[in-house]
Amino acid sequence: MADRQSLTELDNALPFRRRHIGPDEVQRRTMLDRVGYASLDALMAAAVPASIADREPLHLPAALSESETLAALRAKAERNRPGVAMLGRGYHPTITPAVVRRNVLEDPSWYTAYTPYQPEISQGRLEALLNFQTMISDLAGLPTANASLLDEATAAAEAMTLARRAVRAKADLPFVVDTGCLPQTIEVVRTRAEAMGIELTLADLSTESIDTDVCGALIAYPRADGAVTDPRRAIEQTHDHGGLAVVVTDPLALCVLEAPGELGADVVVGSAQRFGVPMFYGGPHAGFMAVREGLERHLPGRLVGVSVDAEGRPAYRLALQTREQHIRRDRATSNICTAQVLLAVVASMYAVYHGADGLRQIAKRTHRYAVVIAEGLRRSGIEVVHDAFFDTVTARVPGRARQAVAAARAAGIHVLQVDADTVAVSTSEVTTSRHVEEVWSAFAADDAGSIDDLDTVTEDAVPADLVRQSEFLTHPVFSEHRSETQLLRYLKRLSDRDYALDRGMIPLGSCTMKLNATAEMEPISWPGFADLHPFVPAGDAAGLLEVVDELESWLAEITGYAAVSLQPNAGSQGELAGLLAIRHYHRARGDEQRDVCLIPSSAHGTNAASAVMAGLKVVVVAAEEHGSVDLDDLRAKCEQYADRLAAIMVTYPSTHGVYEPEISALCDIVHSYGGQVYVDGANLNALLGHAKPGEFGGDVSHLNLHKTFCIPHGGGGPGVGPVAVAAHLVDHLPSHSLDPRDGRREGLGAVSAAPYGSAGILPISWAYVAMMGGPGLAEATSVAVLSANYIATRLHEHFPVLYTGPGGLVAHECILDLRELTKSSGVSVDDVAKRLIDYGFHAPTMSFPVAGTLMVEPTESEDLAEIDRFCDAMIAIRGEITCVEKGEWSVDDSPLRNAPHTTRALADDWKRPYAPMVGAFPAGIDPDKYWPPVARIDQAYGDRNLVCACPPPDAFEE
Amino acid sequence: MADRQSLTELDNALPFRRRHIGPDEVQRRTMLDRVGYASLDALMAAAVPASIADREPLHLPAALSESETLAALRAKAERNRPGVAMLGRGYHPTITPAVVRRNVLEDPSWYTAYTPYQPEISQGRLEALLNFQTMISDLAGLPTANASLLDEATAAAEAMTLARRAVRAKADLPFVVDTGCLPQTIEVVRTRAEAMGIELTLADLSTESIDTDVCGALIAYPRADGAVTDPRRAIEQTHDHGGLAVVVTDPLALCVLEAPGELGADVVVGSAQRFGVPMFYGGPHAGFMAVREGLERHLPGRLVGVSVDAEGRPAYRLALQTREQHIRRDRATSNICTAQVLLAVVASMYAVYHGADGLRQIAKRTHRYAVVIAEGLRRSGIEVVHDAFFDTVTARVPGRARQAVAAARAAGIHVLQVDADTVAVSTSEVTTSRHVEEVWSAFAADDAGSIDDLDTVTEDAVPADLVRQSEFLTHPVFSEHRSETQLLRYLKRLSDRDYALDRGMIPLGSCTMKLNATAEMEPISWPGFADLHPFVPAGDAAGLLEVVDELESWLAEITGYAAVSLQPNAGSQGELAGLLAIRHYHRARGDEQRDVCLIPSSAHGTNAASAVMAGLKVVVVAAEEHGSVDLDDLRAKCEQYADRLAAIMVTYPSTHGVYEPEISALCDIVHSYGGQVYVDGANLNALLGHAKPGEFGGDVSHLNLHKTFCIPHGGGGPGVGPVAVAAHLVDHLPSHSLDPRDGRREGLGAVSAAPYGSAGILPISWAYVAMMGGPGLAEATSVAVLSANYIATRLHEHFPVLYTGPGGLVAHECILDLRELTKSSGVSVDDVAKRLIDYGFHAPTMSFPVAGTLMVEPTESEDLAEIDRFCDAMIAIRGEITCVEKGEWSVDDSPLRNAPHTTRALADDWKRPYAPMVGAFPAGIDPDKYWPPVARIDQAYGDRNLVCACPPPDAFEE
Repeated sequence: MADRQSLTELDNALPFRRRHIGPDEVQRRTMLDRVGYASLDALMAAAVPASIADREPLHLPAALSESETLAALRAKAERNRPGVAMLGRGYHPTITPAVVRRNVLEDPSWYTAYTPYQPEISQGRLEALLNFQTMISDLAGLPTANASLLDEATAAAEAMTLARRAVRAKADLPFVVDTGCLPQTIEVVRTRAEAMGIELTLADLSTESIDTDVCGALIAYPRADGAVTDPRRAIEQTHDHGGLAVVVTDPLALCVLEAPGELGADVVVGSAQRFGVPMFYGGPHAGFMAVREGLERHLPGRLVGVSVDAEGRPAYRLALQTREQHIRRDRATSNICTAQVLLAVVASMYAVYHGADGLRQIAKRTHRYAVVIAEGLRRSGIEVVHDAFFDTVTARVPGRARQAVAAARAAGIHVLQVDADTVAVSTSEVTTSRHVEEVWSAFAADDAGSIDDLDTVTEDAVPADLVRQSEFLTHPVFSEHRSETQLLRYLKRLSDRDYALDRGMIPLGSCTMKLNATAEMEPISWPGFADLHPFVPAGDAAGLLEVVDELESWLAEITGYAAVSLQPNAGSQGELAGLLAIRHYHRARGDEQRDVCLIPSSAHGTNAASAVMAGLKVVVVAAEEHGSVDLDDLRAKCEQYADRLAAIMVTYPSTHGVYEPEISALCDIVHSYGGQVYVDGANLNALLGHAKPGEFGGDVSHLNLHKTFCIPHGGGGPGVGPVAVAAHLVDHLPSHSLDPRDGRREGLGAVSAAPYGSAGILPISWAYVAMMGGPGLAEATSVAVLSANYIATRLHEHFPVLYTGPGGLVAHECILDLRELTKSSGVSVDDVAKRLIDYGFHAPTMSFPVAGTLMVEPTESEDLAEIDRFCDAMIAIRGEITCVEKGEWSVDDSPLRNAPHTTRALADDWKRPYAPMVGAFPAGIDPDKYWPPVARIDQAYGDRNLVCACPPPDAFEE
Repeated sequence: MADRQSLTELDNALPFRRRHIGPDEVQRRTMLDRVGYASLDALMAAAVPASIADREPLHLPAALSESETLAALRAKAERNRPGVAMLGRGYHPTITPAVVRRNVLEDPSWYTAYTPYQPEISQGRLEALLNFQTMISDLAGLPTANASLLDEATAAAEAMTLARRAVRAKADLPFVVDTGCLPQTIEVVRTRAEAMGIELTLADLSTESIDTDVCGALIAYPRADGAVTDPRRAIEQTHDHGGLAVVVTDPLALCVLEAPGELGADVVVGSAQRFGVPMFYGGPHAGFMAVREGLERHLPGRLVGVSVDAEGRPAYRLALQTREQHIRRDRATSNICTAQVLLAVVASMYAVYHGADGLRQIAKRTHRYAVVIAEGLRRSGIEVVHDAFFDTVTARVPGRARQAVAAARAAGIHVLQVDADTVAVSTSEVTTSRHVEEVWSAFAADDAGSIDDLDTVTEDAVPADLVRQSEFLTHPVFSEHRSETQLLRYLKRLSDRDYALDRGMIPLGSCTMKLNATAEMEPISWPGFADLHPFVPAGDAAGLLEVVDELESWLAEITGYAAVSLQPNAGSQGELAGLLAIRHYHRARGDEQRDVCLIPSSAHGTNAASAVMAGLKVVVVAAEEHGSVDLDDLRAKCEQYADRLAAIMVTYPSTHGVYEPEISALCDIVHSYGGQVYVDGANLNALLGHAKPGEFGGDVSHLNLHKTFCIPHGGGGPGVGPVAVAAHLVDHLPSHSLDPRDGRREGLGAVSAAPYGSAGILPISWAYVAMMGGPGLAEATSVAVLSANYIATRLHEHFPVLYTGPGGLVAHECILDLRELTKSSGVSVDDVAKRLIDYGFHAPTMSFPVAGTLMVEPTESEDLAEIDRFCDAMIAIRGEITCVEKGEWSVDDSPLRNAPHTTRALADDWKRPYAPMVGAFPAGIDPDKYWPPVARIDQAYGDRNLVCACPPPDAFEE
């Protein structure tokens, strides 16, 4: 032990960043040599324009180890007191089956997967999502449901815009919102309506009539106060006045209440949270939407459908993608980019595990406990407000509400103080006799009697004409996996079909598929975080609120902004919130007319859609030939819209993957015309620790914690999209009237259902920052940029790299141009993407931002061996394209066009002009090779023959 | 909601047993109809002999739900106070990398796998075990290590018998044990030596000389009191006196201390616990043994070796199986059946993740903290006993030891009170500066000074001539997976190669591969259980001790015995403990001469091996033609050995899978000759809730918690083998001098290193019993018996069922006789087993208890669809055998002999006389099919060319 290190050195010898960052010192040296720089610092000095580079170290706490981080989070979790939440209001305790928790929520095969844009390697989660759609469709009594939305409140807002769109002739008609809706739902719908100039009418639709023409109505069933009233009258009146009837509901209640579709609803929305998804202090959960026939092409978000593969077998894929914002841009009516896939999978598996009869039992039991609670209160002389209810009992205790709530809390039970005289108690899957006794005791309901006696003599409290008659979950998938062994194998079989980060690289440009470290993931399923209801008193969520506050402050430091709101629960919501903050700001200054949003032609489609949703007019700014914003056109547009200029939305580094040196000039120009600069944080992974958008000219940014800050993509959600703003915009951040910390912030209102959005997964990003520390974050950025430039250097001879910035360098991603090759060979971007599957890879981003190209982002987490394996595959594919160019293979029967190759193709009579080895093992024989379960999927067929629910089992028979 | 259920009914509507038991009511009806019984009760009444049936319900607590069980265990976990264990003595805190915890320890693909007897579908864990062997071999400095042993103490005992065997000529020579060994190691070695009549000599080998001939010596390096002394003198003296030098060591210390092999050791043993395996209150961990050239064929336990497959590629499999107890029976010298695979995998992955340099850092850091602690004590005037140490500082504090220990405990730190005047403190991977300060404070070491200053001025405390010079972990596998992404993918790749319960049925007769429910598994990795050191004061382990006590009492109730000891940490150890109890009992009664153990010819080989290890002489009792014990021969043998009769070992139901009606008569006969009846609990899954061995004549049984009580097989361990005894044997159960509950039990001494054996996984079985309740356990048994009889009924036309009991029924398993088919077709049991892989199954038990047969045990957890899929596959294979019989295929080029088929075979030039479809998809095209990574493995080749460490990477190049 001659080379003695000090204890301090030894203490710091094995930092987390060594585990997070793929290339080690030796590999970095190799890569730097290839790219031509002496050091990481030299590379970054050349790549990042001096005008924006920030050499100041980040002011963040010193990096913790993994075990220190877990200990710190454990201490925070222990400071939360979830208790037994009987607060209702859209969030309910539920029992996540342990087999689902371990094998979905905690399984990297599920949580590290990407959105299923490459359906051939996503059949597992696509089937799970189809189950989700079938479940929602069945429960709602409507034929088509989507693959989930962000939460109930945003689903309701989406339904409002859907209604306006569907009854287009009367687009200026008001939208009616039932006062029986959850307060957070009303608040989010109001925020969104105001932004888009939609007139909102509030009415108690259980009693009041609709007597003027409307574009639609949002009808509560059951109502927030627990009452179950018949929605048929409101539905009919809505129809009579030309509108769409949207019913907002609770899927567990629908196991005993008649389906809204059967009652005439056109659209049904809600949250699937209580189907096994932890409350997570408000999110993430899976919101949902189902629609009647004729409206399916208006559905926002993702929709899974059935099509066929090249071998003629049914296969799943995302349907009707032409509806979506990335294609429709400023004509889009929703900016939703993704779903809550991981949570939708959990909810669907909850239904698969329980089946219709199990769900009915849970619903009945939940109802009966509510019935017994109500009757016990009545017998003790306490007024129960409603006769008909499902799970929520609202009781009148004049002047004693606070006291009853406090007494319950002392017994570990959270009940809801509605006002000084009223308390509401909601039962759930976890309710037990003990809880009932404690609730009675908190109300001083001394004459309640025995639970069993009350149960025997008290009738159900569901109106007879609303008792569910229609069947649901009749597909075999909901009855074939009832033992844990069966469900375990089903989950394994599905996850085995999919390619996720646990198999190999997912080099998706602009998506930043980096490591989701286990130490970051573990805490989210601890009961102290997972079981927290968002409306418990702030003191009972002290540990998680500390995570929120610390993470907000760290993100502000990292981005150079004054403040951050974690409320937006997706990148799209962060964008919307940022633009709304800008509008709010202009309005507050009397600049009501500032409604023009400049968007470069290369922008992500979501930018334009978000701008429209924020009530802004989109004006496109041209790009120069090498991809950066054309400053002359920018000046011209600013001049043209001088008075009306609200903002510009730019991405930095640009969507072309380069550090544009003109960014400071661009910001100056826009500011000089009174506009605000919105810097889309999609590419923040190229900036952390090296430059701060809040310092180089940005007024607002949204971040994607699911890209830059290690929240996994979950197979297509959840995401978290915090919005960060400069000091002058702090008062215009999202706020929430139900924030347990009253008056925390004046702001623009709620953009998400829960005050802190998807609070339950924030420990992931907290842990990432805590473990990396400032220097670790900066190092990760440098390595990400090194890796992208290494790829560009290795591949540019084979595929032209479309754009470069200073020093001929790219930022953290590079665009490979295939357009000439496509012209010369007929081989398309699609062919290359599918062929990469045969080589064991997920394709890079296809045809964004430029059609006919592939955008590659390796991130800092991929090591050199994996990066080289990818480059080798691309070079080999280039060789295959040459064979096509030379006429050795026709493109139509080439390994490229026939890709991906399945084991079935190998076992079948092989008649291709190349050997099976060439088709199936192009990178050499590999016994660990991932085999796609289906061959190339026919996208168009599925859209022509739309099927968005589980097909009958015989469809799969050979 | 017309058919209103009561709340009580609703509360009990979704019991756990519905999740545990595969066949639902409808499926059971179908199966009963096929077998020909009106009900489960009728079936069991016909199957179980009335003479043993116990109709009394089990006196167990009412069944809990999964969430109630998790809550109950959480409460128990919270009552444990692991604190920071600086107690040493063979157990050390360690940081399990989170990625390993989640993706090995908590991943059903690893923990539900079986022992890798079918190597073609076990390549993943075989590679991991080969890594383990390479790691141990490197650290020990010896060429061959086995795939782990139960713990350090039993490994030392095995080394003793190995030494005796290896120096056969001097078998009556004493074995010397260094007083520097851990007390529990000495105690277990003594128990085993006494049983086998080996003379044990204790000596301080750091000072005393060996001056008479010996068969071997166990030399401590480092010593239990922390001292590091040079073992070379003791090694040389052992050699000089004809013995084998066995060094017992600590693998972390070996990262800085020279390898014992380099110092001359013949055998090295120890525990790999501190390589990332939680302390688990004593177990399970991975013990290890490495040996010099020439001793490899004497190694006990499992040994993984490299061979080749039918396609010429390197492939792994268990080597040298002819050494093992199941083949050598009473000539066996060890009864070890399995390894601690799951824990060995964890330990190996810890080394893969850290590599040699990471391990060196951890070892150095551990050492430096010890050095600093020692110097701080010295400067405060406290005597430090040893100058040379690795991690344990023994300090002299005359009269103040208790006080120092109490002060440390008050600060949350456990240190070891050696005696009234002496305290020992052990550092570990988790030690921090704070712990050092607290330790000093507990010692009132006020003049310690600053840690950094001490660190700067104090030299290492490792003797210069023992500083490690030799390299270790130089194989690339220990440097290629250093980022979490790399390790995650490596773990995924390995687990993807393996077939475990998460893919399908593993119908292994006598192994009871049932559901390992997630709710049973989750608690074991909670810190409250996992991080508990076995020697903390009993009050700090109150919650886990409650689990122990409750489980012991429940198992006693279930089996009808008076008491149970959970100490034996494998079935083989339970057997040994049970036989030792019998010997102890006879001796206590003055019946020293009772040394004959009767064993039926059909018994498991382990029975005989255990009997020999317990110092008994094995006498075989004949079986009748239909498989049951020949009572006439039994009487004759009893008569012949009347005075010497110690015991009979029987399995019930018999290893033939039938309920032998003669069991009561058998017990009576043996008792009448003064013998004890040992009922092997291997088949207890056919008895639970229906009959109790302790009531129908058994005096002792061991149970296999890893069969009947849901502890997963872990890919080949851990197991737990409690021993249960009747009242007269209670005082002869295992005891342990380090039991934190002093004087809990007088007994025969320790059989495992830890007082409660593998205590850390007992919550699994506790949860199983708690969730099933008495009626649930009985129902599970009935369904297991129904399923076995259903298979026998479906298959007996195709394959004769070898044995049946009352009513023509089998118990929980059935034996399919292939011998005639082998004669007529040449198709072997092996061919059928490998062909089952193509059909997507793990083979049943091969050629046990009868050569040329398959023993099938479906367990209660497999549902009818899976059972039918298996029967269909067997029937289809029967059809394939017919094709061979008819000459359509030659057996040598049939799909049976060529099985299993790989994707490589499909892609290669196919020249077989049957279509690829027939070879690869015999059960129809299945995109979810499991593909074996290798073709049939040549067992003999590997034994002829023994390679038991990682082959160089180029061995795998195509």
